[in-house]
Amino acid sequence: MRSLTIFAVEGVGEIRPGDVLADAIARAATAQGTPLEDGDCLVVTQKVVSKAEGRLVALDPDDATARRALIERESARVLRRRADLLITETHHGFVCANAGIDVSNVGIGTAALLPIDPDRSARRVRDGVRALHGIDVAVIISDTFGRAWRQGLTDVAIGVSGLAAIVDLKGTLDANGRALRVTEIAVADEVAGAADLVMGKARGIPAGVVRGLDEEWFRESTARELIRRPAEDLFR
Amino acid sequence: MRSLTIFAVEGVGEIRPGDVLADAIARAATAQGTPLEDGDCLVVTQKVVSKAEGRLVALDPDDATARRALIERESARVLRRRADLLITETHHGFVCANAGIDVSNVGIGTAALLPIDPDRSARRVRDGVRALHGIDVAVIISDTFGRAWRQGLTDVAIGVSGLAAIVDLKGTLDANGRALRVTEIAVADEVAGAADLVMGKARGIPAGVVRGLDEEWFRESTARELIRRPAEDLFR
Repeated sequence: MRSLTIFAVEGVGEIRPGDVLADAIARAATAQGTPLEDGDCLVVTQKVVSKAEGRLVALDPDDATARRALIERESARVLRRRADLLITETHHGFVCANAGIDVSNVGIGTAALLPIDPDRSARRVRDGVRALHGIDVAVIISDTFGRAWRQGLTDVAIGVSGLAAIVDLKGTLDANGRALRVTEIAVADEVAGAADLVMGKARGIPAGVVRGLDEEWFRESTARELIRRPAEDLFR
Repeated sequence: MRSLTIFAVEGVGEIRPGDVLADAIARAATAQGTPLEDGDCLVVTQKVVSKAEGRLVALDPDDATARRALIERESARVLRRRADLLITETHHGFVCANAGIDVSNVGIGTAALLPIDPDRSARRVRDGVRALHGIDVAVIISDTFGRAWRQGLTDVAIGVSGLAAIVDLKGTLDANGRALRVTEIAVADEVAGAADLVMGKARGIPAGVVRGLDEEWFRESTARELIRRPAEDLFR
């Protein structure tokens, strides 16, 4: 039967602008006795990517005007406002609260912005693990987003390299030989959410490993596949 | 470090109305060499629950009018229509395509409806595993739903028993001693999505096991916690 193992990568240490994430994470995985392996999917949180890429800005936590201006600068469109919550579409096309800007697990007076190009961030980590350690992993950059209709947040993929963001089962037959109607599975989002189950936001763990994914899912891809175009979205 | 193991339960065989799902799944898990254990979270797909509970109706696949009438009967409100796609709010409060009615992996000319009370379905499986096999598991009933804003579908929880649908981190401090702003994590949805990664829709595997979840998450809960009330939903 198919099985997966998912584990957290601890002991990565504080990441600063310019640090090579691929090396820090691969070394920490080895140090805890679970070295990365070919065919792993490495899930890296947005926060640590933003730190490594220097996507940090000063933000006075009491200055609501500055905060709103920053959110609007990082957004292509504001979709909804309620009290101090803005739901916006980022320049990447992601719909999320406050343009994905977050102040937890960064220094007081600092805010972390989303990476400029999270797919490129994912590719850089993947290429780094291969170049420095000779291991072929897929990489997902994850972030914690809310949803329409449902309470609570889940981790989703904002950057992908080496794994299908979406697996399309079109043409696949069910157990009775009938074509499946539900065909596009957002595998990268399910993997990001699965890795969140071992990371824990309070502890600030920056990465997890998902081992055992279907080898047919490993292909070139980007998180842009996960973005529904506004014109095709019935709820925007 | 924290780690999870996730595996599919194969060999359950065809389920018919009146079958005791708890027993069929627990026996299949044992037969494949991975018996259920205390502290496991058993994820059971909606389809097999609907079959066991006899939530099957005749539906001529070519009769669009009958199909639409069935969807409307199973819905409290139709939110959007496009071509033959209806996004509706079910009587439970779930927002999904076609009221969750599905025709794959059931006989030709038959459609599976959502369980009447998926939380009760989850509790029944949980109680059955405990009563018949003496094992204390949490149970999630999962289904495959689309999302606003994002392409592709993911598995989410429509019924929950014995596991927190949402884990609220309110009051938890980040690594710098600052209160987390993102606090409500939809753990049951992340677990449902994780289990989908080992099941595979084409093979019609009806259950998966997630082993190693944080023991603090095991508590009484229902999937109603995951339903955002329409009045609080900015996108309905």
